Amino acid sequence: MTENILRACGSLSKKDIGQRVSLRGWVNRRRDHGGVIFVDLRDRSGLAQITFSAEVDAALHKLADELRSEYVVALTGQVLARSDENINPQMPTGEIEVEGKTLTILNAAKTPPISVCDEQAVDESIKLRYRYLDLRRDSLKHNLILRSQVTRVVREYLYAQDFLEIETPILTKSTPEGARDYLVPSRVKPGKFYALPQSPQLFKQLLMVAGYERYFQIAKCFRDEDLRADRQPEFTQIDLELSFADEREIRSLVDGLLARIMPLVGQKYPDQVPEITYADAVNFYGSDAPDLRFDLRLIDISDIAARSELKVFKEVVERGGIVKAINVKNADGQLSRSALDAYKDFVGKFGAKGLAWITLRQNEISSPIAKFFTKEQLDGISQRLHGEVGDILLFVADTKKVVHDALGKLRCAIAKDLKLYDPGEFKFCWVVKFPLFEKDSEGRLTSTHHPFTKPLDGNYDENTLAAAYDIVLNGVELGGGSLRIYQPEEQQKVFAALGIDAAAAKEKFGFLLDAFQYGAPPHGGLALGLDRLVMLLARAESIREVIAFPKTKSAECLLTEAPAAVAPEQLRELGLRGAAQ
Amino acid sequence: MTENILRACGSLSKKDIGQRVSLRGWVNRRRDHGGVIFVDLRDRSGLAQITFSAEVDAALHKLADELRSEYVVALTGQVLARSDENINPQMPTGEIEVEGKTLTILNAAKTPPISVCDEQAVDESIKLRYRYLDLRRDSLKHNLILRSQVTRVVREYLYAQDFLEIETPILTKSTPEGARDYLVPSRVKPGKFYALPQSPQLFKQLLMVAGYERYFQIAKCFRDEDLRADRQPEFTQIDLELSFADEREIRSLVDGLLARIMPLVGQKYPDQVPEITYADAVNFYGSDAPDLRFDLRLIDISDIAARSELKVFKEVVERGGIVKAINVKNADGQLSRSALDAYKDFVGKFGAKGLAWITLRQNEISSPIAKFFTKEQLDGISQRLHGEVGDILLFVADTKKVVHDALGKLRCAIAKDLKLYDPGEFKFCWVVKFPLFEKDSEGRLTSTHHPFTKPLDGNYDENTLAAAYDIVLNGVELGGGSLRIYQPEEQQKVFAALGIDAAAAKEKFGFLLDAFQYGAPPHGGLALGLDRLVMLLARAESIREVIAFPKTKSAECLLTEAPAAVAPEQLRELGLRGAAQ
Repeated sequence: MTENILRACGSLSKKDIGQRVSLRGWVNRRRDHGGVIFVDLRDRSGLAQITFSAEVDAALHKLADELRSEYVVALTGQVLARSDENINPQMPTGEIEVEGKTLTILNAAKTPPISVCDEQAVDESIKLRYRYLDLRRDSLKHNLILRSQVTRVVREYLYAQDFLEIETPILTKSTPEGARDYLVPSRVKPGKFYALPQSPQLFKQLLMVAGYERYFQIAKCFRDEDLRADRQPEFTQIDLELSFADEREIRSLVDGLLARIMPLVGQKYPDQVPEITYADAVNFYGSDAPDLRFDLRLIDISDIAARSELKVFKEVVERGGIVKAINVKNADGQLSRSALDAYKDFVGKFGAKGLAWITLRQNEISSPIAKFFTKEQLDGISQRLHGEVGDILLFVADTKKVVHDALGKLRCAIAKDLKLYDPGEFKFCWVVKFPLFEKDSEGRLTSTHHPFTKPLDGNYDENTLAAAYDIVLNGVELGGGSLRIYQPEEQQKVFAALGIDAAAAKEKFGFLLDAFQYGAPPHGGLALGLDRLVMLLARAESIREVIAFPKTKSAECLLTEAPAAVAPEQLRELGLRGAAQ
Repeated sequence: MTENILRACGSLSKKDIGQRVSLRGWVNRRRDHGGVIFVDLRDRSGLAQITFSAEVDAALHKLADELRSEYVVALTGQVLARSDENINPQMPTGEIEVEGKTLTILNAAKTPPISVCDEQAVDESIKLRYRYLDLRRDSLKHNLILRSQVTRVVREYLYAQDFLEIETPILTKSTPEGARDYLVPSRVKPGKFYALPQSPQLFKQLLMVAGYERYFQIAKCFRDEDLRADRQPEFTQIDLELSFADEREIRSLVDGLLARIMPLVGQKYPDQVPEITYADAVNFYGSDAPDLRFDLRLIDISDIAARSELKVFKEVVERGGIVKAINVKNADGQLSRSALDAYKDFVGKFGAKGLAWITLRQNEISSPIAKFFTKEQLDGISQRLHGEVGDILLFVADTKKVVHDALGKLRCAIAKDLKLYDPGEFKFCWVVKFPLFEKDSEGRLTSTHHPFTKPLDGNYDENTLAAAYDIVLNGVELGGGSLRIYQPEEQQKVFAALGIDAAAAKEKFGFLLDAFQYGAPPHGGLALGLDRLVMLLARAESIREVIAFPKTKSAECLLTEAPAAVAPEQLRELGLRGAAQ
C-alpha cells in the first residue's frame, strides 16, 4: 500500500496527480451533485476539492453526506486531474481534485453566524464578537500572514545589521509622549500606579547610555485616547535606536528595511526616496505627511488676492492670512456645480469659511469671483497655477493653518474622487527639518516631537529646526524619529525654552537626565507603526483588519467582553474604590 | 592618506596590524605610565588598548590626559603589535594596541557611583537604581546579548517550521491561570477593568479555532504575585500552539528548538532526552521537576519501618504516611554531625519533623536509630539503598507530600554542597503523564494545569492522567504544555468534575466554549519561560540578571521609581478614588 503523504490543501497541483495524500482542515463548502459529494476542504494554505462518489464507495459517501460547513476533518485520497470542462481557473488548485478514500470527522460545527467562505456585508460588531470565525476569511488570513512575514523580514534584517532585540518594561512610568496613560494600580504600594508605556522612548535612550549601541524591539505601546478610525488602545511599533549614527545613517537603515519589506507585496522600494522639508510639505501639500501620488500643489496667490476687489480675500490677507489655490486639471465637465458645493462643505469641516472656484474655458472664465479681478490678475493667477483650458482652480482664504488643513485635505479627496492616482501605487517620501517647537494656543513653546529631540542648529526659539525625520507613505506617516540630545547643557536650554524648570524636569525625567551625566553617546532612532504599515501594504481599510483581536472605537473587545467588572475584593486589595458618581 | 576604517574595539586582532582604524566607545580605564596614557576603550564588542604618547604628539597626549572613566570618545589610530612582554593573554585583543592619532571627546562623564569595569560587591538597590551603568558590565551585557541570540534562534526555527507570529492583546480579560491579575481601569467604561494576561492561553486556542494551525509569540505575561527570587511581575514566554499535532510532535518540535539554542552556549542538546512520568518523578526525586544531574533517589522503606521498633516511623506508616531515604555515597567524613543537624533544620522548612541518619561503617553501623531495627531490617534497608561502607543514609518519615518535598529539596542541597555534579552540565528531561486534577485542602478537585487540558483517558476522577508534559532543565521547569480539550462534551465532563457549573463556565470562558462549537481542530501547545531559560543558559543567579530593566521583590523599578503617585484628575477620569484606609 502506498503511504499517504501529509499535505497542505493549497499546495496541491498537477504535479501531484496520482499521489495518495492525507489532508486535514475545515469544510469550506459541500455540495451534492448527481451522487457525488464535492467538498472544498480549507486549511491555512488554501482550498482543495475532494470528491466522494456513491458509486466508488457507498459507505464513505454516506459519511461525507454528514459533513456541514466548518466541520473539521482528516481524510486521505488520491489526486486526480480534473477533466477539461471541470478545471477551475479561479482556484489555485483548480486543475486537480482529490478522490476521497478515507474520512474522519474530527469535530462537528454549528452553522456559523457569519459566512466564512465569502465576503458578506455583516455588521462589524457581529464580526468582532465572532472574531475566530471572521479570522477564517481569506482577507483577514492574508493580512495576518503578511503581518507575520513583515515582522520576520524586519527582524532578520535588523539581526543581520547587528541589532540586539531587547525587551523594555510594560509596567512602567509615564513616558514623554503626553497622551493619556493607561494606569495599573499597585497592590504592594496602594495608591501608586504603573503606567503602560506610550513608547519605549526613555528605555531605548537608557540602553544607548548603557552602551548597547544598536537596539530594536517590536514593541507594544498604549494610549488611552478617544479612538479614531485607525487608532487602537494598544498598538505595535518597530522601535529602533542607534548610537554614534547620524540622520543619514538612520534613514538609510530604514530605507534598507523597507526595501526588504516591499517585495512581500510585489513592490520595489525606490533606490532614491524623495526628501521634502517640513516647510515645503506644509507649503505645497498642506500636510506634514504629503501624499505624492498626485500633484495638486497648493499655490500661494495672496499677493494677487490683496490687490483684487474681492473683499473676503483682501481682508484675509490684511489680517495676516493667506490665499492659496489648487489647479484640478481637466476638471471642467468632471466636477459638477453640486460636486463643488460638496467640496465647499468638506473644507468647512477643517474651518474654511468658503471655497471659491474659477473654471478656465476657451475665451471665457466661468466663476462667481472672476468679476473682482482684473484680466491681468486673472492671467497672473492662471499662469502661477499653470492653468489651461478645462482646468478648475479652487481657492481657500483663511489663516495659514486653516488654508493648509482645508486645501491639504481637499487635494486628497479630489485626487481620490477623480482617480488621479493608481490605488496600487506606493509612494514614499522622507519629511525632514521639522520645527523643534510648536506654539500652543497660549503662545507657549511645546515640543513638536518630545523634549529630547536634538536641534539642528544652536538656537532655541520658534524658528529652530529639529534633527527629526518622518517616513511617509501615500500621505500616511509610517514612522518618525530624531537624533536625541545627549549633552546636559543642550538639554537644559531646550527645557528652558519649553518653560520646564529644573524641578519639573527632575520630577518627570530625572533618571534619564541623571543617566546622561555618566557618559551618554550621540544617538538617535526611529519608530515605525507596524499596524499602519501592514494596513497600507495589505490595502486594508482599517488597522482592525491587520490585528488578530482588535478593540472597538470604545476600546472594548466584543469577543472576550473586556473591560469587565471585577470582584470587590480585587479592588479592596488594590486600595481602590469607585468614585461616587 | 589612508582612510580610517570604522571598527569595533573587540574585533581588532593581529590581522589588523598596520591598519588605520576609527573607533568609538567608552573609556573603561585610563592610566598614565611614563609619559604614555593608556586607555582601554570599550564598546559593545569588547575592549582595545589605545596609547597616547607625549613624545609622539604632545597636544594629543594633553587632550588624552583629560579623559576619565566612562567618557565617550571617537578616535583614530594605527594598530600596532604589542611587544612580547606587553602581550595580555587575558584580553581578546591583547596582542595589539592602537597608537592614537586623533581624539574627540564626545561627552564627559561624572565618576560613576558603581564600577563598570570590574565586578564589585555593590548593594543590589544601588545597581538597580543605576541600571544603565550596571548594564555596561560584561556579565549583564553578555546575558542580554545571549537573550537576543536565543530569541533570534527561536524565531528563525519557528519561521522555518511554518509558524506564524501573531500578537495577542495585553489589555484583555482574566485568563485561566488563577494567579492574581494586574488590572487596568477603563476610562470609557468607569468601574470596569481590563486584566493584563497571565498567558496568551485563551487567544492561542482561539487562533487554532480560527484555522491558523501553527502560532507562536514571544509574549509578555503578567502576574501580581508576591515575588520570589526568580519571579517578576512581568515575564516573557515563548508561546506556541499547533493544530492537528499530537504530544509526540509537539515535544519533538520543542526538542528541535532546544537543539538549536544549546549551541549558543557551546552545548549539544541530547538526541534522546530522558522521559519520566510525573509519578516516577515525585516518587524517586520528590519533585515534578527532577534534577537528574545526580542520582540520590528517594527509596521507600515504609514496609521495613512499619516492622521496626522506631515509634515515630511506625506511627507515621500507621497513619498512612511513608518513610523514605536517600543514600549519600561516601559521605562518611564529608558530612559532619553539625552538617547533618543543619540538614535537619533544612528539611524542617518543608514540614519534616526530623531527619534520621545511618552511617555505614566497616563492621559497624553508626546511628541514633539503628538500635530500633533488627540486623535483618538494617540489611534490608541497606540493600534497598545499595548501601556500602562509607555511605550515609538519610530518612524522613511523614505524609507523602512532606517526605517528597523535604527529601526532594534535601537531595538537591546535598548534591550542591558535596559537588556531586558538574555545575556546567545541562541535563534535560521530559516529565509526562501529569495528573489531570489535584485535590485542594478541602478535598475538591482542581485543575493541575488549567481546565482545558485534555485527559489521556476517558475517566474524569482524581486518577485521570492528562496529556500534559513539562520540559525540565537541571531541576527547573523550563516550560510545559498540553493537548487541549476541543470537544464540548469532554469539556463539560471536566467542568463537572471540577464542580464548575454551566453558568460559571459561561461567565468565565463563555467565548472560548462558544468558539469550540464552530469547528475546533485537535490542538495543543507549550510555553517556555524565556527568562528562566536564558538565566540557566547564562548561569546567572536570578532572572533579574537576564532582564534589561527588572523590578525588585516588591515590584518596584528603582530606576524610574515606578509605581508612582498620579494626579487626582487622572483617578477622577477613571472614576476611581483610594479606599479609606
